[in-house]
Amino acid sequence: MIFRQLFENDSSTYTYLLACEQTGECVLLDPVIDTAERDLQVIQDLGLQLTYTLETHIHADHLTGARKLRALSGSRIAVPKMDEIACADIGVQEGEAFRVGNIELRPLFTPGHTDTHHAYLLDNGMQQVLFSGDALLIEACGRTDFQSGDAHTLYYTINNKFFSLPDETLVYPAHDYEGRQITTIGQEKNRNPRLGQQTTEDEFVAIMDNLNLPYPRKIDFAVPGNRDCGRCPNNVPSEYLGPCDIAEVMPEQKTRVGDQG
Amino acid sequence: MIFRQLFENDSSTYTYLLACEQTGECVLLDPVIDTAERDLQVIQDLGLQLTYTLETHIHADHLTGARKLRALSGSRIAVPKMDEIACADIGVQEGEAFRVGNIELRPLFTPGHTDTHHAYLLDNGMQQVLFSGDALLIEACGRTDFQSGDAHTLYYTINNKFFSLPDETLVYPAHDYEGRQITTIGQEKNRNPRLGQQTTEDEFVAIMDNLNLPYPRKIDFAVPGNRDCGRCPNNVPSEYLGPCDIAEVMPEQKTRVGDQG
Repeated sequence: MIFRQLFENDSSTYTYLLACEQTGECVLLDPVIDTAERDLQVIQDLGLQLTYTLETHIHADHLTGARKLRALSGSRIAVPKMDEIACADIGVQEGEAFRVGNIELRPLFTPGHTDTHHAYLLDNGMQQVLFSGDALLIEACGRTDFQSGDAHTLYYTINNKFFSLPDETLVYPAHDYEGRQITTIGQEKNRNPRLGQQTTEDEFVAIMDNLNLPYPRKIDFAVPGNRDCGRCPNNVPSEYLGPCDIAEVMPEQKTRVGDQG
Repeated sequence: MIFRQLFENDSSTYTYLLACEQTGECVLLDPVIDTAERDLQVIQDLGLQLTYTLETHIHADHLTGARKLRALSGSRIAVPKMDEIACADIGVQEGEAFRVGNIELRPLFTPGHTDTHHAYLLDNGMQQVLFSGDALLIEACGRTDFQSGDAHTLYYTINNKFFSLPDETLVYPAHDYEGRQITTIGQEKNRNPRLGQQTTEDEFVAIMDNLNLPYPRKIDFAVPGNRDCGRCPNNVPSEYLGPCDIAEVMPEQKTRVGDQG
């Protein structure tokens, strides 16, 4: 297997590249529209073919690169089936392995940050590897105060779906804002200030209710755009138009930019 | 492969269990005398046979469990060849793979914390895995102010032997004092306050020269004891005699305890 942990600066998103060395197929987990070309360059440099993009959830902090990557490379768009996203090519769900060449990802239904969030579990032969999306972050977790978030549900997800995994399980989150790259289930049980084994559900909900986080600056266009596989919607502010630079991704904006020019 | 990250509380040491599922053979990396029985219980519960113990270096903060484990299980003692430890069964060195069943560990000569320190590199099929011993710790590194430590040498080791590995390389250290379990080469490049890419050799040496760490409380018996594969030497204080509870490990102490009783 070939593995790369790629980073998108503006939203501090980790995009994961998983490739099957035998077939040359690969998947990008949670690609960002801003770094679509960078991701394809990495894939090309490795002599691989992008087979799929795969989402953990409908992101509010960035536009997915799924549609742009499909336009540029012919990749197929995979999303959680329960999202019912019409533009996607394939739906994934818990209980059905998602295969890319000889790589097998096990989708885990892990709601709480959003109500259709999925994480993905892989066995690398040495330990389990969890791509935890926004559900579990390093010494943190995804916020639960917008979209379909619910702190009670996230508490259940982390304690039952994640903390039942072996302590040695590697955890690769979808974001980190302090340059950290990895954690383990054991480390989060020990150190996560919101979710250590001593935190009750009520305490967790109180913590999440009092985070006082700012309104997500991209949410108003990111959520509808991501429901359309990363099409830049009409209400995208001009400073975010840069990544929307191909017609297939943003036909409306191409027209609008033309009108402005 | 079966993998376990085990912890010894008194010296905050991580002992790593690596087992070949095909043959049932396994190795304990840096076992501690205090937790020898615990380690064997884990191995027995997994249906494995302890084939080897393997050391990264001659520890100053704990007695190795190597001799005790050999007495209890028939395991063989592997150490860096250049340590010239007479009681060991096998010496390892850079350039010669160390195999346990189908597991292959690549010894890396990584002096600085001690002048014969070795780390071990493994390819798990997804990423490289570095067992960094005391050379590189999470946001820290081993001290260089006793035994044969040298800060200039450790700077060279980390920058040349470790930071030349891929950023995704997993790093499992021999110690952590804050409950952290894992890091990566990329994360340490970004975050290690002593060893980020911007730290010059002179700055690093100055940092190491000014740590003002306390004298290691076990060093006076641990170093000679570990040079003898973890035999409790005559000068072990009575509060540390507990783990030295079998005749093969401490014939002198058995006599002495008898004299006292």
